[in-house]
Amino acid sequence: MQDLLPIFFALSFLTAAIAFLFALYLYFWVKKQKIENREIIRVSQLIKEGAETFMGREYKLLGLFALVVSLVILILLPHPIWQGSVIDNISMVIAYLAGTVLSAIAGKIGIMVATLSNGRTAEAAKRGLKDAFLVGFRGGAVMGLLVVGCSLLGVTAVLMIAGDTSILLGFSFGASSLALFAKAGGGIFTKTADVAADLTGKVELGIAEDDPRNPAVIADNVGDNVGDVAGMGADLFDSNVAAMTSALVIASSIADSALHVMEMVFCYALLGLLASIIGIATARVGKDGNPTKALNSSTYVTTGIFLVLTALATFFIDGFSWRIWGSSATGLIVGLIIGLTTDYFTDDTKPIVGKVAKASASGPAFTILSGTSYGFISAFPAMVGIAFSALISYQLCDPLGEGFALFGIAMSAVGMLSIVGMIISNDAYGPVVDNARGLAEMGGLGEETIKIADELDSAGNTVKAVTKGFSIGAAGLTVISLLGAFMAETNEVLRAAGKALITGFDIMQPTVFFGILVGAAVPAVFSAMLILGVDRNAERMVGEIHRQFDTIPGLKEGHATPEYAKCIDIATKGALKELIPAGMVAIIATLLVGFIGGPTAIGGFLLGNIVSGLLLALFMSNSGGLWDNSKKYVESGAEGGKGSEAHKAAVIGDTVGDPYKDTAGPSINTQITVVSLVSSLCSSLFVAFSLF
Amino acid sequence: MQDLLPIFFALSFLTAAIAFLFALYLYFWVKKQKIENREIIRVSQLIKEGAETFMGREYKLLGLFALVVSLVILILLPHPIWQGSVIDNISMVIAYLAGTVLSAIAGKIGIMVATLSNGRTAEAAKRGLKDAFLVGFRGGAVMGLLVVGCSLLGVTAVLMIAGDTSILLGFSFGASSLALFAKAGGGIFTKTADVAADLTGKVELGIAEDDPRNPAVIADNVGDNVGDVAGMGADLFDSNVAAMTSALVIASSIADSALHVMEMVFCYALLGLLASIIGIATARVGKDGNPTKALNSSTYVTTGIFLVLTALATFFIDGFSWRIWGSSATGLIVGLIIGLTTDYFTDDTKPIVGKVAKASASGPAFTILSGTSYGFISAFPAMVGIAFSALISYQLCDPLGEGFALFGIAMSAVGMLSIVGMIISNDAYGPVVDNARGLAEMGGLGEETIKIADELDSAGNTVKAVTKGFSIGAAGLTVISLLGAFMAETNEVLRAAGKALITGFDIMQPTVFFGILVGAAVPAVFSAMLILGVDRNAERMVGEIHRQFDTIPGLKEGHATPEYAKCIDIATKGALKELIPAGMVAIIATLLVGFIGGPTAIGGFLLGNIVSGLLLALFMSNSGGLWDNSKKYVESGAEGGKGSEAHKAAVIGDTVGDPYKDTAGPSINTQITVVSLVSSLCSSLFVAFSLF
Repeated sequence: MQDLLPIFFALSFLTAAIAFLFALYLYFWVKKQKIENREIIRVSQLIKEGAETFMGREYKLLGLFALVVSLVILILLPHPIWQGSVIDNISMVIAYLAGTVLSAIAGKIGIMVATLSNGRTAEAAKRGLKDAFLVGFRGGAVMGLLVVGCSLLGVTAVLMIAGDTSILLGFSFGASSLALFAKAGGGIFTKTADVAADLTGKVELGIAEDDPRNPAVIADNVGDNVGDVAGMGADLFDSNVAAMTSALVIASSIADSALHVMEMVFCYALLGLLASIIGIATARVGKDGNPTKALNSSTYVTTGIFLVLTALATFFIDGFSWRIWGSSATGLIVGLIIGLTTDYFTDDTKPIVGKVAKASASGPAFTILSGTSYGFISAFPAMVGIAFSALISYQLCDPLGEGFALFGIAMSAVGMLSIVGMIISNDAYGPVVDNARGLAEMGGLGEETIKIADELDSAGNTVKAVTKGFSIGAAGLTVISLLGAFMAETNEVLRAAGKALITGFDIMQPTVFFGILVGAAVPAVFSAMLILGVDRNAERMVGEIHRQFDTIPGLKEGHATPEYAKCIDIATKGALKELIPAGMVAIIATLLVGFIGGPTAIGGFLLGNIVSGLLLALFMSNSGGLWDNSKKYVESGAEGGKGSEAHKAAVIGDTVGDPYKDTAGPSINTQITVVSLVSSLCSSLFVAFSLF
Repeated sequence: MQDLLPIFFALSFLTAAIAFLFALYLYFWVKKQKIENREIIRVSQLIKEGAETFMGREYKLLGLFALVVSLVILILLPHPIWQGSVIDNISMVIAYLAGTVLSAIAGKIGIMVATLSNGRTAEAAKRGLKDAFLVGFRGGAVMGLLVVGCSLLGVTAVLMIAGDTSILLGFSFGASSLALFAKAGGGIFTKTADVAADLTGKVELGIAEDDPRNPAVIADNVGDNVGDVAGMGADLFDSNVAAMTSALVIASSIADSALHVMEMVFCYALLGLLASIIGIATARVGKDGNPTKALNSSTYVTTGIFLVLTALATFFIDGFSWRIWGSSATGLIVGLIIGLTTDYFTDDTKPIVGKVAKASASGPAFTILSGTSYGFISAFPAMVGIAFSALISYQLCDPLGEGFALFGIAMSAVGMLSIVGMIISNDAYGPVVDNARGLAEMGGLGEETIKIADELDSAGNTVKAVTKGFSIGAAGLTVISLLGAFMAETNEVLRAAGKALITGFDIMQPTVFFGILVGAAVPAVFSAMLILGVDRNAERMVGEIHRQFDTIPGLKEGHATPEYAKCIDIATKGALKELIPAGMVAIIATLLVGFIGGPTAIGGFLLGNIVSGLLLALFMSNSGGLWDNSKKYVESGAEGGKGSEAHKAAVIGDTVGDPYKDTAGPSINTQITVVSLVSSLCSSLFVAFSLF
């Protein structure tokens, strides 16, 4: 059978190049938008500098971390240096570093463009909704294009050069470790600033959300960018790379087949990027002037284009299978369903938000209890959706031969993530317009403009819930296929060692069961540590804000400028300090389980981790979104409106939800991917040294 | 090999008889204690009547439910009536009814004695701590003895008469369905009353906890009894029966062995009861006058006696194995460790309670965030403990032959539950002294007496956390062995049908994976529905309390008596109404998964259910206990004491924790056992009719 791989390598490079060129065009398009208001220029400059400070420090710490990890890889992975060719280990190190560097570049540029767009969006809002939407959306889209372009480029280049899918695991691990820093660190940063700003500003002083007298206000705006642009981007870069990697690892373990399995992975991934490019290029607010609709409909357009393009490819290219296309389509459709159920539980036009608002009238305890309960219930449809998606893909592809069932699951993850370029664009749109709203207020652009900015911001919040549900679902499917990748990797080691292969992980086997229980407890501890980290860090920042109000004369009256940089500094230092122990707990637990129970225990560990991680991530993201929107719903006049008892209770719910939805919830994805990759990478060590 | 089973049947009956006689003695001992204060007699009579009202209604509804279930069993289980002997189905119905009736009797008598003891404990407190402790403890101990006596009697009788361990599953299911009503229904009742009483009394009117002007005050005291005496008793009756049942089902599936496996189950269970009797008989407050120490040291005494007695039995009886003794001992020791870690996270002399109290000073959002975080962290040691206990028992017993590994796990659950008589006594002591404290206040017994009652009450709260952790741990291990029992049952069906047997549940198999994800989501939905039920029901009761204050002249001033019965009525009706949908969701999900994915999907379903159920149950119980004790800690003067902002925040935490720790958390155990037993019972149906 003809090897089409070189052709698809070339096509992947070409598509990545198109994405980069388009991103460059959007960058210049955004840059040439006028910006005149001096205050807006000044403040957006402060936000930009703050974000760069954080990213700089984060990358420095990450560099140190990467150095240590590189050394460990060099000595031990894929096999101990004294047991095999050192070339493999060097390749792995290079792949690992490439993963971190590519993700970092995408994050860096994404932040640059986002902080470039926020002020321009505010100014464009003076001209109307349509223009402002376009500036905000295109500013965010640069990140979407870069992330998917870089991941496609990276995976293709690493595989082409190394010629071995195992090395891809190193690349994927690099992406994951960056995501852990960006997502968890960014999440702690953003919520530290948000919580501290709210506590001192709104609660103690009774000043507005974006009041420039508050020393934490710039840190809060910086947080939106580092959390939602850089963090979410790194998270989805990670998921996307992991999905492709696991599909490719499983594909390479399929012995001689009549199908072009590796080619299909590249083909579907690049068509997904193409579909996203078209979706981004055509996104516009329609006649009805509804930005939410614009964002959603471009997602549907992308989905439709992807399904048609892949169907055409499957039809015309010999060696592509309809069954695999079916798996991909299933994954994508389940992803949309998950997004829609998230929407049901968090959108204020749906009943649940109103119920939580009503409960708030009885006091904060009922805000918490009802939000928690609906959060738990909201996890159900998503988990059932993922369960069905895995079951259907498996059954679809199983008849193709041995190994295809797992490949089907991996391809359903690839399918779900195909529209990730669009998803990131929607998500990065959020902080751009959120910042724009604040800038419009600080720049005194007038009520009409602020109203437009508000409308754009509200669309961002609604769509964010959907993209978050989507990204958790995608991570869920991805890690299932990572479990398959782990088994494939381990069997390669076992085969080389002449030992019996693993055919599965039986839950009645005690090591598997042991691993499952420990694995299930890890996301709970991980997220708890992040939340406690936010608490501690916010406390530090509140102390600093009090100090500034006490020692800077005229600050309260607005005659003096607060020391914004001090707050940014606290958020930065604290975020990086608090995330390390949480990350270490996850990694150390993985290693301990592996060295106690061996590869079978790790199989169980990953399963337990996925299951409880999915449940907690969905619960935290959704209940957080629900509380946020319930507060806004009350503020819009329900249950007594602003200043009522219900409002006070809803604010407490929102504060609880902040670290849930923006720190712990979305970081769990990354935690799962990290431990999955650590497991795959260390499989040879677990085979060689384990207690049971 | 000689069949020793008849001897152990006889010994089991004898031990149960001793337990009953001792309970009778304690009953008369408590009854002959003096009670003179008219107000105390009046109020304790009201509590008694209220508890009886609830139990009567509950049992009536349960009777209806049991009737429907009996019909279903008669037609379908253990095999459809048209496919086998109808005698089996009739036996199953009888066993099922026996399970519900025995548990109901134990609950009924336990409540009777508890409501008899509360007033007498209050009066005894006039004479001093030692006397009062003894009355309170012995009142609770009757429940402990009855529960364990009835479970031993029931299991022995059913097995002796039916001669088939499968029929035991029916008995166990009967116990489970009663536990579901008693625990979840009782949990909704008690928290409805507690929350409504607090909201209207403490918050709105600023009157004390047990103020007789509050229409909900009697319902609140009734709730303590139906929740902690009847509910907890039914829960542990259920766990104990399930542990013995699964051990016996697995034992019977072990083909010809040189060991007396069935005999060991009975022997260990009856020695556990004997050890508990000795522990109860010797429990006394020592010279230092510390009731917490008295409760804990009698638990240790019981543990020691059990270990020695079983070691002697294992040494002297031919065909008993040290490996199995080791498994039992491991289970028991892990149970104690779980109890101690729970204590660490919830005891106010340990650091965590103080941390949450300190966080409360920053506002209620931080009370919630810190309590949630520590609650999640607290689940870790318990889950790792259970994981190790399963791993060690498996490894210990695996060398004994096929099937022994699972038997080892089942015996570690039996070991952990061996001291259950002592555990229930400690737990039932709680509401007795809690009531006594309220009665001492209402009866005007003076400050000195109230202080003594307070001390007894506080010991009850501390010990309650330990017993709750213990009971969750025990349920965890039990359901693991129920998973084994399910496999054994299914294989019997498959063998009879001439189909291939199940050797395990491989997580890489799509049906298993499908089941795992769905199973993991069920406890989240189940507990959310219960919490929402408490919310709704408390709202109804608050409405009723407002109505009484508005329409009964002189009530606020204390000149009129409130209509206590109305509140009890609302709590009763609402509790039963709200629990049905939650229970149905769990059962219907089980049936759907079974009919979609067959027995392998059910294996996964049970695993997912156990894992996420354990995590959530531990999280909810512990964070609830933590908030409760943090509130008390603040009330004792920390962080500004009563009336401070920290106190207000801590009260909100406590209100959130109430349904967590007393409704949802402890009901999850029962939910897990119910679906496990439904699965085992329906195994033949799943084999016959399933989609995949």
